[in-house]
Amino acid sequence: METRSSSGSTSESVTMVIHNAVIVTMDSESRVFQNGAVVIDKDKIKAIGQSPDILQQFSPLADQILDLHGQIVLPGFVNTHVHTSQQLGRGIADDVDLMTWLHHRIWPYESNMTDEDSYISTLLCGIELIHSGVTCFAEAGGQHVSGMARAVELLGLRACLTESIMDSGEGLPVSWGVRTTDECIQSQKKLYEKHHNTADGRIRIWLGIRQVMNSTDRLLLETRDTARELKTGIHMHVAEIPYENQVVMDTRKVDHGTVTFLDKIDFLQNNLLAAHTVWVNDTEIGFLSRAGVKVSHCPASAMRMLGFARIREMLNAGISVSLGTDGAPSNNRMSIVDEMYLASLINKGREVYKRGTTDRTALPAETVLKMVTVNGAKSVLWDNEIGSLEIGKKADMVVINPFSWSMVPVHDCISNLVYCMRTENIVSVMCNGQWIMRDKKILNVDEEEVISLAKRASSKLLRRAGIEIPSRMTIL
Amino acid sequence: METRSSSGSTSESVTMVIHNAVIVTMDSESRVFQNGAVVIDKDKIKAIGQSPDILQQFSPLADQILDLHGQIVLPGFVNTHVHTSQQLGRGIADDVDLMTWLHHRIWPYESNMTDEDSYISTLLCGIELIHSGVTCFAEAGGQHVSGMARAVELLGLRACLTESIMDSGEGLPVSWGVRTTDECIQSQKKLYEKHHNTADGRIRIWLGIRQVMNSTDRLLLETRDTARELKTGIHMHVAEIPYENQVVMDTRKVDHGTVTFLDKIDFLQNNLLAAHTVWVNDTEIGFLSRAGVKVSHCPASAMRMLGFARIREMLNAGISVSLGTDGAPSNNRMSIVDEMYLASLINKGREVYKRGTTDRTALPAETVLKMVTVNGAKSVLWDNEIGSLEIGKKADMVVINPFSWSMVPVHDCISNLVYCMRTENIVSVMCNGQWIMRDKKILNVDEEEVISLAKRASSKLLRRAGIEIPSRMTIL
Repeated sequence: METRSSSGSTSESVTMVIHNAVIVTMDSESRVFQNGAVVIDKDKIKAIGQSPDILQQFSPLADQILDLHGQIVLPGFVNTHVHTSQQLGRGIADDVDLMTWLHHRIWPYESNMTDEDSYISTLLCGIELIHSGVTCFAEAGGQHVSGMARAVELLGLRACLTESIMDSGEGLPVSWGVRTTDECIQSQKKLYEKHHNTADGRIRIWLGIRQVMNSTDRLLLETRDTARELKTGIHMHVAEIPYENQVVMDTRKVDHGTVTFLDKIDFLQNNLLAAHTVWVNDTEIGFLSRAGVKVSHCPASAMRMLGFARIREMLNAGISVSLGTDGAPSNNRMSIVDEMYLASLINKGREVYKRGTTDRTALPAETVLKMVTVNGAKSVLWDNEIGSLEIGKKADMVVINPFSWSMVPVHDCISNLVYCMRTENIVSVMCNGQWIMRDKKILNVDEEEVISLAKRASSKLLRRAGIEIPSRMTIL
Repeated sequence: METRSSSGSTSESVTMVIHNAVIVTMDSESRVFQNGAVVIDKDKIKAIGQSPDILQQFSPLADQILDLHGQIVLPGFVNTHVHTSQQLGRGIADDVDLMTWLHHRIWPYESNMTDEDSYISTLLCGIELIHSGVTCFAEAGGQHVSGMARAVELLGLRACLTESIMDSGEGLPVSWGVRTTDECIQSQKKLYEKHHNTADGRIRIWLGIRQVMNSTDRLLLETRDTARELKTGIHMHVAEIPYENQVVMDTRKVDHGTVTFLDKIDFLQNNLLAAHTVWVNDTEIGFLSRAGVKVSHCPASAMRMLGFARIREMLNAGISVSLGTDGAPSNNRMSIVDEMYLASLINKGREVYKRGTTDRTALPAETVLKMVTVNGAKSVLWDNEIGSLEIGKKADMVVINPFSWSMVPVHDCISNLVYCMRTENIVSVMCNGQWIMRDKKILNVDEEEVISLAKRASSKLLRRAGIEIPSRMTIL
């Protein structure tokens, strides 16, 4: 294989050459260089190929040459559904029913947050995301986007940030108040003006719809039109539980659920990222596919709270399905590495109910790796720049150490990445050409300091919100 | 709370006082000491209680006093179904159908093992078990028990070791040969004589039945009688797939599956550890409960290969259900910590198929913690000595650091242990009063050396067995 580079000229210097690595490119040819190298020039990949060829061509020009001693390099993972502002609420709502979860834990928690809480929560969440190899995430819609943006800029991550948007709905905390449709749209336009394309282009602002039961038709349509106008995406929770579909059938006069309704009002478009999307029928999968809607599958959260999404059918219908962790009180591990493992397992298990046996071949490892890379990039409308290691793309990448007890022996490198790899194996992470974690050390913030800030802020927030968590055992 | 100790006299010295820890005892009162201490005398727990009381009484007598700075102490976890001799085969059978898995991967692999392979495989597996907080495991039935025993003795673990036993069955590799019933029983009696109660009492020998389709009725009955005679347990794979039940119905003339047949021949007893036990009906759950049979639930392996076990119904019927990882080619993470997380998630999710929604309250965290401690100990017939932190019991314990990004904030300590904890949080492990891991360092073997032995041995074994694993991507 010849060395490929973006230009014939190699006279200028380049930032870095990484070599002696197993490079899983996730490009359209699924190329894996067993002894591969990649050349990084500022924030971009300038060349990729076999180590000897790359070294010969680029060594003289490199500011830095890094020998990875056979470690594995993958494109940075994309987490397409995460509530960064819920990180301080991890553990506040475990093993409780839906109404307790929402009315007595999550809403009081979110409605009592400050901008500073959101900043600290996003820092803590970001640390966990980076440790699990994430370089880009899609915020699911949360409180105080300014706080999130500050944290993302500091951490060095790439993100599509979204405000939690509702213009109607019963049972919301009084203190929160319900905003008008216009207020919702105006607020997001302001956020867009202030934050879109900031942090060296790492931050984008998306529009949010919390969910259909908290949205008027006008909000939905104005969101669609505003997204078109701003050329950005929409992030929305879709068809999470059967009750949601029932409410939509009752109030919106359609014969199935949320997706049918969204199709009817012409809301479905290729810039919509639909989270969960568990309760959909074949017709609705057809609607999603035809419109080019992207789906974020959150295996842990779905198993715990929603049900078994029809991932295989959606993939077969050509839908770009990616993976998300959801928020800390719904999961509670914010690890895309664990979601990969889970995605493969539960989609094998789910077949029991259709076929009488599991399908051990369902969602094979290579498909799961696509979901967290290529499909993730498509889902956040950023696949022209991220999702695979190719010349001209952004240098977003993960370095994995496969030589520890958790991954050896490596008979099948690709399946070990999905079935064996744990966050422990992720040693270094680069985003936009900058290391944001090296040798398991987060570089741009002090982990201990963030943890201590988070402990203090979360205790205060729970007190302010009046959230009390009963003891499970006899505490002495 | 007063300090409790095993004798009024405190004049002799004790080995160690561990204090300033959150001690989750898992005793019958579910006591948790928020600032607790435990006194260890040789291999046993001599006292447990509040730190100030314990320190006052035992400090003068202690050889060593250890301040855990608020870390969490739990009883050592019990992994009740693990194929230690399959560790070298991790990744050889991912995403393939059942027949490929068994005939072209697992059987050739196992039938080509040497005693040395089994030793190395058990060392590698044991390292992973210890890192995930396991102090005691039940071998599922494997090759070369002598190799396993050597490894367990060296690692410092506690184990019930079992040979893979089959006296009939189609399709087995020719080189393996099928042993007669008498050979099966004699072989196990010899292993019992040689290894039972060795390694300071940490090793016990159990009897094995690989599965009903590879067993004659005579083997089953002689195994039952021999176990009674030797006062030991039986480990058997039970009701794994619908096909197994169908074969039993066809050949053994019963109206349901394996459990119905085993009840009919009076095989079910309270020393039987039934692994998986996925495909059972209500009547069969009744049989298992009445006989006092223990069940090992392996969530990952079940989702991937078998189906959704009826864990909630079994627990409701009073069956002691514990957790297992199964073998490396079936999972492939050998982490009981991950199985805890999975057990809670999938048993919430499984309710979708009965109720139309998940049950977020199913298998709450405290139940899952019981499964890996108290129930685990009962399942391996060792609950008089392990499974909880109580005076007089063996000092088998795990130290957990809950202060890292993966577990903070800790609003609900018990649920964080199940939902957030990862192997990364497990810092130290003690078995039989001896540290076998301190600060994440395995003490009795050199990890790097075992990993390098394992790489070499597994490559050779695959070559010998003629196992070739196709590439999933374009390898260059």
